[in-house]
Amino acid sequence: MIHGPRVGKMVLWIVAFAAVGALSVSFAFESLPNQPEFPKDNPQTREKIELGKQLFFDPRLSRNGAISCNSCHNVMLGGEDNRPNSVGVNDKRGGRSSPTVWNSAFMSVQFWDGRAASLEDQAKGPLTNPIEMAMPEHDFVVARIQKIPGYVSAFKKVFGTGVTIDNVAKAIASYERTLVTTNSPYDRFVRGDKKALSQSAQRGMKSVQAMGCLACHSGPNFAGPKLPVGQGFFMKFPTIPGSTYEKTYNLTADLGRYEVTKKDSDKNFWRVPTWRNVALTAPYFHNGSVKTLDEAVRVMAKTQLAKDLSEHETSDIVAFLESLTGEFPEQKMPRLPASVGMTLVED
Amino acid sequence: MIHGPRVGKMVLWIVAFAAVGALSVSFAFESLPNQPEFPKDNPQTREKIELGKQLFFDPRLSRNGAISCNSCHNVMLGGEDNRPNSVGVNDKRGGRSSPTVWNSAFMSVQFWDGRAASLEDQAKGPLTNPIEMAMPEHDFVVARIQKIPGYVSAFKKVFGTGVTIDNVAKAIASYERTLVTTNSPYDRFVRGDKKALSQSAQRGMKSVQAMGCLACHSGPNFAGPKLPVGQGFFMKFPTIPGSTYEKTYNLTADLGRYEVTKKDSDKNFWRVPTWRNVALTAPYFHNGSVKTLDEAVRVMAKTQLAKDLSEHETSDIVAFLESLTGEFPEQKMPRLPASVGMTLVED
Repeated sequence: MIHGPRVGKMVLWIVAFAAVGALSVSFAFESLPNQPEFPKDNPQTREKIELGKQLFFDPRLSRNGAISCNSCHNVMLGGEDNRPNSVGVNDKRGGRSSPTVWNSAFMSVQFWDGRAASLEDQAKGPLTNPIEMAMPEHDFVVARIQKIPGYVSAFKKVFGTGVTIDNVAKAIASYERTLVTTNSPYDRFVRGDKKALSQSAQRGMKSVQAMGCLACHSGPNFAGPKLPVGQGFFMKFPTIPGSTYEKTYNLTADLGRYEVTKKDSDKNFWRVPTWRNVALTAPYFHNGSVKTLDEAVRVMAKTQLAKDLSEHETSDIVAFLESLTGEFPEQKMPRLPASVGMTLVED
Repeated sequence: MIHGPRVGKMVLWIVAFAAVGALSVSFAFESLPNQPEFPKDNPQTREKIELGKQLFFDPRLSRNGAISCNSCHNVMLGGEDNRPNSVGVNDKRGGRSSPTVWNSAFMSVQFWDGRAASLEDQAKGPLTNPIEMAMPEHDFVVARIQKIPGYVSAFKKVFGTGVTIDNVAKAIASYERTLVTTNSPYDRFVRGDKKALSQSAQRGMKSVQAMGCLACHSGPNFAGPKLPVGQGFFMKFPTIPGSTYEKTYNLTADLGRYEVTKKDSDKNFWRVPTWRNVALTAPYFHNGSVKTLDEAVRVMAKTQLAKDLSEHETSDIVAFLESLTGEFPEQKMPRLPASVGMTLVED
């Protein structure tokens, strides 16, 4: 049993003095906790995490045996695939870009549109999504895993049961809760190491505060305030309509949260994504339409804050965002249990 | 610098007495060396192996960023993908099944048709194969890798040069030379642990010898005699024409070695594949047409030796083949160097 979250909050309060007038805003800059919370009914255990890691890397969880969770959420990279959209079974594509799995455990809802209340809920989605892993139904997933003796014994050991889809999801979620990147240059800076950030990054840090970026990208994960599990933090994007970026990058075609709720007020609302490791997750935005981080910064300034950034402002903010790339915990490669003497996948 | 091969040959000579007549054949049953030999111009170093591992797992080496070497030669499984053929960029498929990368370093030629003389030669093939990783040319591969600063510094450190395609191949080959599975039940048996093999597996061991399977599947890797690098050990399959299996599994459509040499005498000749970990590499044969190991054993007995096996004979041979599943060395998951703030892949 691994113990619950030990949150080492070392908060640095920075007061931003706006250039003009007496405006003074203060935000808490917080370092990332070492470990996210977990649901009461899914405590972390070493064996469960190991099982979840195997499932996460196992392409046999997809119909044709060619796509694993890791295919689109590559933990050897920034936790996604650096593509505008991901490649599913039979080269199927969706319209959205894979969000990073790193630090996803700190998000109170999952998917771009927040349609899953937990990592457990999320894990079940792609398995049967016809453009992702394309399994016809969850029973099919269970039946395939049941044919692999090493998994059957692992489920017995970890859960005391046979293979169930809920336990598949619990194991995967448990592994994902270990995917935390602490100790970025930013975190070290916030904890007092003044040399951890370049002058440019420090200017960028002040800019994102002064400009109002942190109104949405707040908290230790820079993805909004801490909310109860299942309650998402959504924001409209673009907030300010009519920019040239909107057309260039086709930002409004996908209605986002509206596709889940069908409420007009949710049109073009999106879960606020994390800034953690954002330098590693190009291309950007829900549709992966923007190839570079500096352009993404310009787009956000214009569409959310009606600001045209100078080249210097942009590069300072980029330097700050780059400082949010954390340390990736060393991992043992899983060995996937064998289906001895037979193949289980379909073409 | 890691030292060269230390071959702990503990050879057990078993004399097979054929049931009828005075025929007596002896074969050497040898355990697998801990380490294969390497070319003089590509010595193993820790840094080179680590670089090769990164490249092996890096999907950015494919045009669309979705396919890595490991996609089709999955080292977390039996070194291939358990599919009849592999899935390349844009769901392209070839007619042949991925051979295992485990112990491939013991093979004197690479690919089913032996068209590559070394692992270094082999590694360059899939990168630009339009149905595999689909890069337009090797210069394109080099140019992409050069955009990733972590790789540029690693190549400098390992080779003292910039990125070159030859050094990409050398690094990948060096990593592959570490993919050796020693200490299978068979190896332990051969070294004197008489309990390592079941009675059934021991009967199977005698069968493969008595029947003549070892005429081709000889040596510690059960893939033929030790030959100089670049000299392949090929055999006709099917040797005995006209079996129903030939039609059922479409065994002769692909002309194998002939496609490389265009010599009539090479028609339907194939590199003799290894038996090591064969229980993990279903489906079987060059076209991946046979889904189970017991059926593969029946097909081989019939098409190569004109023998119809009993159910018992088949299951004994399968038990022996299963005993050739080795121990897979524990591996650290590589972290792939980042392309910061930008994506490099094409859709």
